[in-house]
Amino acid sequence: MSNESLEELLRHHLEVGGFHQFLGMELVDFSKGEGTVTIRLPFREDFERGPGTRQWHGGPIAALIDIAGDFALLAKLERGVPTVNLRIDYVRPAIDTSLTARGRVIRSGRTVGLVDIELTDDAGRVVAVGRGSYLTTSGP
Amino acid sequence: MSNESLEELLRHHLEVGGFHQFLGMELVDFSKGEGTVTIRLPFREDFERGPGTRQWHGGPIAALIDIAGDFALLAKLERGVPTVNLRIDYVRPAIDTSLTARGRVIRSGRTVGLVDIELTDDAGRVVAVGRGSYLTTSGP
Amino acid sequence: MSNESLEELLRHHLEVGGFHQFLGMELVDFSKGEGTVTIRLPFREDFERGPGTRQWHGGPIAALIDIAGDFALLAKLERGVPTVNLRIDYVRPAIDTSLTARGRVIRSGRTVGLVDIELTDDAGRVVAVGRGSYLTTSGP
Amino acid sequence: MSNESLEELLRHHLEVGGFHQFLGMELVDFSKGEGTVTIRLPFREDFERGPGTRQWHGGPIAALIDIAGDFALLAKLERGVPTVNLRIDYVRPAIDTSLTARGRVIRSGRTVGLVDIELTDDAGRVVAVGRGSYLTTSGP
Repeated sequence: MSNESLEELLRHHLEVGGFHQFLGMELVDFSKGEGTVTIRLPFREDFERGPGTRQWHGGPIAALIDIAGDFALLAKLERGVPTVNLRIDYVRPAIDTSLTARGRVIRSGRTVGLVDIELTDDAGRVVAVGRGSYLTTSGP
Repeated sequence: MSNESLEELLRHHLEVGGFHQFLGMELVDFSKGEGTVTIRLPFREDFERGPGTRQWHGGPIAALIDIAGDFALLAKLERGVPTVNLRIDYVRPAIDTSLTARGRVIRSGRTVGLVDIELTDDAGRVVAVGRGSYLTTSGP
Repeated sequence: MSNESLEELLRHHLEVGGFHQFLGMELVDFSKGEGTVTIRLPFREDFERGPGTRQWHGGPIAALIDIAGDFALLAKLERGVPTVNLRIDYVRPAIDTSLTARGRVIRSGRTVGLVDIELTDDAGRVVAVGRGSYLTTSGP
Repeated sequence: MSNESLEELLRHHLEVGGFHQFLGMELVDFSKGEGTVTIRLPFREDFERGPGTRQWHGGPIAALIDIAGDFALLAKLERGVPTVNLRIDYVRPAIDTSLTARGRVIRSGRTVGLVDIELTDDAGRVVAVGRGSYLTTSGP
């Protein structure tokens, strides 16, 4: 698949389905060779924890981490793979900022893929880190 | 706090903030003594993975698990506590079903609380399990 | 495989290999149908954290949890399976006590198995809990 | 504390207690400023999985990851801290090789510290990765 086709595939996946449409993510960067992807999600009140705080709820943070992990393998394997498990460590509150998630494939084996994800705020500070296992057997 | 006041507190927390309002969760049950809470989330297209599949995206599943864990400690401690980390294992796809999340406090120490969460579909099958650590030091 | 043959297989696996020999575990109970196994490990100074404290080091606790998870699937599938990932939550210090680990299969799929493990002390208190994913594709 | 005193403290902790003595670890490197530590563990038959395979059992791998995480915070804080939880992903079998564990503090807060650990074999390949949460409140 050419780089242009892969970019199209990634953008299509980011926009398709009810939950991705709710989130409204932007593709910032990707590399098939390195198995990395960077996705940005601007803040909206729909993501807010306490009313008026402009603090991100942990839920959309977890969702963005899952998606960035999935997309790092999507960039590497050129197909979507289901999540086996996902682990999230919340490092600091994210307040009044967009979030940038960078997924990086640690390993992509015949059956299981492992991805690290780092979430940063507009000041470049780490807000949360994630690690996910994905099932790489399922493919066309 | 009386059981009625605690129920009011739980219902209030479930409804407050942009993300909780987006989700639209229902309080099914809780027990302060046992440190348990049960929350139900009906399916909506906003939670969908692939368009028209009626399959839940992993994102709202992760969010519901985080919230049920938080609320089990909220029922036990009568105050909200921040998530330290969260781990989710996806067991089977959830398709065309509402989800019921049951959180149960394993331990509630002076600094860290540990909660197990089980997510079931309308047929009572386990869809995902979660385990979360929460910071219990933060007082009111 | 008969229940006697399975018990023999489990006992053989518990005794074989340098690390299992170092630990010195005892098979307490198992059920193929339920996918459960119970293993006991008496305290020795080799497992000690601080000298003279008789407190268990986290290392042998982690190892025992991994093994109990593996053996729950061994009881269910009648063959050993490699660990994909393992998560351990330390609940309270284990001091001057043997440890009993109970593994229980949550799910045993075609590719991935999920097991919960609970570690208790001689007073029946939970010392640590574990959750592990294992690769079930690898056949004999 | 001077760098020499810190090195002495780290070496002392590596040698003290029954389980550390069983393992026989070597301090390779550390940096208080960066919150990193590198520990090496040579292979012995006591660590073996199947007899004669020279393959590391997952148990000592998990233990080494826990210790490297603990020591990264020990280098940073100049005191030992208890593990809250630990997650290990096994990436590839480690066969006939010593293991080198590098711990790196991601965050060291008032109550919880987060550490990433990478385990490599003699060829520099990643054998396993770990992530641990540690309780940093407990003072001297």
